[in-house]
Amino acid sequence: MINLKSVRGFHVGGEMVRLSGLAVSRAQAATGGPVRVSDPNGSYQTGQLYAQYFEQAQPRGLYPLMLWHGGGLTGASWEDTPDGRAGWNTFFLCKGYSTVLSDAPERGRSGWPRYPQINPQEPEHRTIEQAWGQFRFGPGGGYMPKETERTYFTNQRFPTQHADQFAKQFVARWTNTADITLKAYLELVGKMGPCVIVAHSQGAYFALQAARHTPNLVKAVVLLEPAGAPDIPTGPLPDVCHHIPHLAIWGDYFDNSVLWREYRERAERYLAALHDRNVLVSHLDLPKTGIRGNSHMLMMDSNSDEIALHVHDWLTEAGCYR
Amino acid sequence: MINLKSVRGFHVGGEMVRLSGLAVSRAQAATGGPVRVSDPNGSYQTGQLYAQYFEQAQPRGLYPLMLWHGGGLTGASWEDTPDGRAGWNTFFLCKGYSTVLSDAPERGRSGWPRYPQINPQEPEHRTIEQAWGQFRFGPGGGYMPKETERTYFTNQRFPTQHADQFAKQFVARWTNTADITLKAYLELVGKMGPCVIVAHSQGAYFALQAARHTPNLVKAVVLLEPAGAPDIPTGPLPDVCHHIPHLAIWGDYFDNSVLWREYRERAERYLAALHDRNVLVSHLDLPKTGIRGNSHMLMMDSNSDEIALHVHDWLTEAGCYR
Repeated sequence: MINLKSVRGFHVGGEMVRLSGLAVSRAQAATGGPVRVSDPNGSYQTGQLYAQYFEQAQPRGLYPLMLWHGGGLTGASWEDTPDGRAGWNTFFLCKGYSTVLSDAPERGRSGWPRYPQINPQEPEHRTIEQAWGQFRFGPGGGYMPKETERTYFTNQRFPTQHADQFAKQFVARWTNTADITLKAYLELVGKMGPCVIVAHSQGAYFALQAARHTPNLVKAVVLLEPAGAPDIPTGPLPDVCHHIPHLAIWGDYFDNSVLWREYRERAERYLAALHDRNVLVSHLDLPKTGIRGNSHMLMMDSNSDEIALHVHDWLTEAGCYR
Repeated sequence: MINLKSVRGFHVGGEMVRLSGLAVSRAQAATGGPVRVSDPNGSYQTGQLYAQYFEQAQPRGLYPLMLWHGGGLTGASWEDTPDGRAGWNTFFLCKGYSTVLSDAPERGRSGWPRYPQINPQEPEHRTIEQAWGQFRFGPGGGYMPKETERTYFTNQRFPTQHADQFAKQFVARWTNTADITLKAYLELVGKMGPCVIVAHSQGAYFALQAARHTPNLVKAVVLLEPAGAPDIPTGPLPDVCHHIPHLAIWGDYFDNSVLWREYRERAERYLAALHDRNVLVSHLDLPKTGIRGNSHMLMMDSNSDEIALHVHDWLTEAGCYR
């Protein structure tokens, strides 16, 4: 049972751009309806971010939990798992946290800009084959259309038999828009006020930046397999940064992925630098605690609720839950 | 207060396509991280539909209310209004209906396909200028970047001073994918079971089709300014279709829009044909009842809750609420 005060969906951030000199065409937008003018010249919003706020009637989490997705995905990655179980949004709502699901700019309900007119770059569309290796379900080349022919890592906890269902969550992404995205996330934090950020993969980069840029609003940071990290701060951090505990969680099969060893090394170097500056940094290396078989998509793996429970316990200890 | 049994987000429908022969590139997806291969050759899901199901703990609506958005928009159009009021999703949740917010294929969290490889056509991105005229906020050409310079229709109820905020909801759309979209909507209806469909603009076309294709599951249809309609049925309808009441709601300023008079004429012809075949068809022509000033975006206008209340009363009378 989830008792909510409200569910609100809204957009923050972004800016206006105006295009001109483009060819006007005609389109039949409604089946069987009239043909109308389609004039692409004019004003567009770009860079905005969509968020959905589930506000508890009687919150037990002291701060809303912001759930920030990874690259090529949307806020939907925190909802049902590919095999149809309830995801982390449900888990934390049932615990009594208010939650915020959001789509980074250019993804999902945030809309994406015309290219090359607004963003000169082409987007990247992820294939299931590419995801299979990058998300460490199995070796590169291990995905096959036929389920029985797929090669996955031993003890794999990701529901690989539902990989095709998972692929329905994929959305195009651009790789040149980190600054635009950070700006929108900071606007979201500014609007929501004091919050906890739970971020996955690419989203973790923005969470680490948000903790640096708005340290008075970010009360704790949980990083699921951070794919990136800001540059290491030179010199001491502002005092308020010392009070933001960080938790990083890592799955299995890093031996099988050069790419992920590189991502992880950079993230761990950054977290070590925070630790050296007296920030409380916790690590949950799942295989080291005897939990083998987690992929990059920890919140969808068969033990997703166990990992969520660990996050909940850590947040409770960090004073973010009553 | 909204007491939910669960909130679930998931994808239905779609199919797999496989691409080959495309150039492989390299991308730095994580800021400061390693450059990795980006190989567009392989398998993609396309045509899937994202839905979010807010299930009441103790529903007073007899069937979930499916809220289907219009062209170039997403499920977000049923959430907060551009001026920050709670939208129809909140209204109906507070009344005790379970609701389903969804994004049509290629929009929002449903993801959009590579073009021209998967869909040969280019998408349409809507400008605010085009929306201004098409949504009957004011005359074509009436939008100006400066709010004080805009021309809108007298008594306009759309929050025109927040038109730029509204534009953050716009997403690219294709005009050649009605069949794909209908297929996915029918899968959604099949998954949800008995339901009521509340549909806006382009979405109303799919609602009318769903009532024809799955008449045993669609218990009532509410059409906000339907922008299209199926071809008129030849011969008698299956008996079960006679038990699906239809309500159509129309705003103001049709005299100012040739395009909308054409859309409306086609929709009303279709509804008249249903009526001739003994389907219960109700019309709410707002200006005729003395309510002037509604735009095409009825659920965002200043009297959005009054119109929602009318829908609620009509659904109650139709036996869809206890």
